[in-house]
Formats: sequence, C-alpha cells, structure tokens
Amino acid sequence: MIRGVLLDLGGVIYEGDDPLPGAIEAVTQLHAAGLPLRFVTNTTRKTKRALLERLARLGLDISADELFTPAQAARDWLTAHDCTPVLVVHPNLESEFADIPERDKRAVVVGDAGEAFDYAHLNRAFRALVDGAELIALAKNRTFKDEDGGLSLDAGAFVAALEYASGKTATVLGKPAPEFFAAALASIDCPPEHAVMVGDDAEADVAGSLRAHLGRALLVRTGKYREGDERRFEPAPTATVSDLAAAAGWILDRRS
Amino acid sequence: MIRGVLLDLGGVIYEGDDPLPGAIEAVTQLHAAGLPLRFVTNTTRKTKRALLERLARLGLDISADELFTPAQAARDWLTAHDCTPVLVVHPNLESEFADIPERDKRAVVVGDAGEAFDYAHLNRAFRALVDGAELIALAKNRTFKDEDGGLSLDAGAFVAALEYASGKTATVLGKPAPEFFAAALASIDCPPEHAVMVGDDAEADVAGSLRAHLGRALLVRTGKYREGDERRFEPAPTATVSDLAAAAGWILDRRS
Repeated sequence: MIRGVLLDLGGVIYEGDDPLPGAIEAVTQLHAAGLPLRFVTNTTRKTKRALLERLARLGLDISADELFTPAQAARDWLTAHDCTPVLVVHPNLESEFADIPERDKRAVVVGDAGEAFDYAHLNRAFRALVDGAELIALAKNRTFKDEDGGLSLDAGAFVAALEYASGKTATVLGKPAPEFFAAALASIDCPPEHAVMVGDDAEADVAGSLRAHLGRALLVRTGKYREGDERRFEPAPTATVSDLAAAAGWILDRRS
Repeated sequence: MIRGVLLDLGGVIYEGDDPLPGAIEAVTQLHAAGLPLRFVTNTTRKTKRALLERLARLGLDISADELFTPAQAARDWLTAHDCTPVLVVHPNLESEFADIPERDKRAVVVGDAGEAFDYAHLNRAFRALVDGAELIALAKNRTFKDEDGGLSLDAGAFVAALEYASGKTATVLGKPAPEFFAAALASIDCPPEHAVMVGDDAEADVAGSLRAHLGRALLVRTGKYREGDERRFEPAPTATVSDLAAAAGWILDRRS
C-alpha cells in the first residue's frame, strides 16, 4: 500500500546539531526496503547546499534531488512570475537568490529570518507591498523548537504581521502548500494515495499533507511536538508515534 | 445635536513635529463654542506627560483629564486582572509601567515599539504567552504615517504576529475598543449618540467609533489618509472632509 515516503528534517531527523536517536538507522531501514524517500523541509535558515552538508555531517548522505526546499520553489515562482525578490530571509539564505536578474515586478519573500526579523527589514518589506509587490512565504509555520529547547517564533508570525498590515494574503510555497508535496511525490512517481508523510508539526506536516490528499500522515512525538497536538488540527494524524524509528516500523508493516 | 467631540491627535492635530495647518485654530473654535472635547490617541511612543508637553509646544494647552491614552487603560486593566506586564513597548513608554508591583499572573503588553520590535523582544513575549500570559494590545492599528511621509508598520502587525504564533486573541485597549471611546465620553457626560469622532484612520477612528455607537464620525484627508479609505471599512464615515478646520466647521453647523 505504501509506495513512497516524505520525511520532515528538523525535529524528525535531527535537533540542533545532533541526529535524533534511531533516526539515521530508520532512514537506512527505509532505503534498504527499497522505499523511495524525499525530504521536505520548511527550514529556511540554510541554503540547499549547506543543508546537504549538514545532513552528511550527521551521517545522512542524500542527493540534491532528494531534498525539497521552499527556496527552490521560490526561485521557480519568481521566474514564472517575472519578479525580483525583496528578501526578508536569514542572511545564510540570501546567496540562494543572488543571481536573480532585475525584473519589472517585485515580490517580498519571507523566510525564517531569525534575528534579521527587525523593524527595518519588516518595514522595508511592508513598503514594497504598499507599492504593489506580491507577498511570498517560504513557510508559514507558527513555531519551531529552538536550540535551547524552547518554542520560538517561526516565519509564519512575521508573514501574518505583513498580511495584517498590508491587507494582502501570502502565497505559501513550502509545506503545507499542496504544490510542494505534489512536486516531491511527482519526483518519485508516487501517487498521493500511496504516500505517507512523517513530521513533528501537526499543522504544516500532518494536516497539510492530508489536505494535499496524501494517503497517510504520521505525527512523531519529537521536535516541536507538544502534548495534545494530535487533537489540535484537522485532519488528525493517521497515527501518532514516539519517533522516526517507530514511524519506520509502522511504515514497513504497511509497505506494498 | 452634537454635544461632545472626540479628536485623534497624530495626523489630525499634528504631523511629525508640526501642527497641521488650521488645526490649533480649529480646536480653539470648538473650545470657544463651549463644546467639550476629549483627545483619544493610540500613540504609544510617549508617556501621557510627554504627550501633553509636546502638545503644549505645538501651541495646544490641554489638561491631563482631556487626554485618553491606551497606556492608562492598560494600567487599569493590569490592576483589575492582577497581572504583571511583559512589555513590548517603546523605550519611552516603559516608565509608565515602572511602578507596577510583581503579581501572580503575567500579561504581554504590546504598543508601538518602533525599533524595539526585534526578534528578541517578540520571542520573549511569545514564550510568556506559551507559558500562560494574557495578550494585551495598546492598539491594533495596521499603519501610521511616519516622519519621512511614508506609511510604516504599526503595533497591530506585531500583535497579529503574536496572535498567529500563540493561537491567542489580543484584548485591544485603545481605539477601536468600545470601552475606550465610552470612557472618554463618560468623562464629559456625553451620550454616544450626541458625540462625533474626528480621525485620519478610517478603521480604528471612524468605523471603530461608529461601531461603539457614536452618532457621527468624520474622516479627515490628512495624516495616514489614502485615496479611497472612506470606502475601505464599514461603517463608512458620516462625512469625509479635507482637514480638522473643515471638520470643525461641519461640527459647528450641527452643534446643539
């Protein structure tokens, strides 16, 4: 029944600078079983290249094709819509947009900018919106589990701020955009009904993928998971499991 | 018919460091006609004392009783709800809350913090909300007309950010909270149906006061006014006039 697996990264594979217990082995198990995998992340503090290097340091060697990032989706969107970006992104991510030529129209692109979410950057973006720019969100996650273990404000809060002030509605390119899940599944030729998504975000990962018509979605109790998250958003997870190791077991019991 | 007048300050009386043309004279006319006035402002970058001093420098001498600020409403709210504030406000405004004792509960208080709207302050407030603090907005205005003449992000954008990330809904204490208009009118013993509000914000001043059952509300084409604002929010203004001088003429034609 299950023919393809989408995996979130932060809070599922790793947390901070360390892999989560059993996570790397779980990926190896899924690979060994011949299940095609794709990693779909809303992490926007690093370039795709830097993310791949980080994963390799954690012991996870994957190809560029296996990793889907919102920044790549944004580059495609900007080209398709003939727009130059006005960036509100982490300094680490700016190089991902460095070679985009000047174009007629502008689009504000908001990622998880971290400390770069300051009044000057946000107000510059707001003024571009007032002047007619489109609003693009790499992600609209509300929170992420920060390095100190606490929940911190994610990009979604600042997207909401710009939406509220400008009256515009952001086009979200990362999870839970159905197009983002669809692109990842298309690349492994897996129909959505035979796919499963595994994530720690009950809203963007789990409810989002089920709304994008994936057959199943598992919520793991690692990363940003908080007690009761499985009842907080609709649709609810197909199952809630302790971690990726448990998720891999669940999936391998149901593979075609 | 009209027995009391509420006036906004920024964008109606002054802009930047200068009074708007004819504004001080218009207040003098209204005073001379014996109409009781109250100044209701969502400006939260200065203490009440500093605001009164600024108005005096502009040539407008009013008493502390005539000026209604959201910070005063917040102090009352914090006392009534036995809360200590977690401040996200402009450094100038912090002294207004300096003498509040430690209390059992906490409430995040958001004003127009300007450059102090940075990631560290906002995330500290977010974490207090996650820990159970209430969310109080001194104002939820979307924009204000900045010193350089452009529109800039106002407190409302950051209130929306904290609401989105925390899932909580802010209690708004300044305009357009009906209690705020009601307190100002009660102080001049004026029934709402005989009152008029004059402001440059079609949403918080005009639609807000009409929703609070004021009899009339005038939109002035100064300050943050933008072409078409009179059609952007419901209820629409009773009339749209060029500035406070024109508003005073309109009001004096309809005084009881």
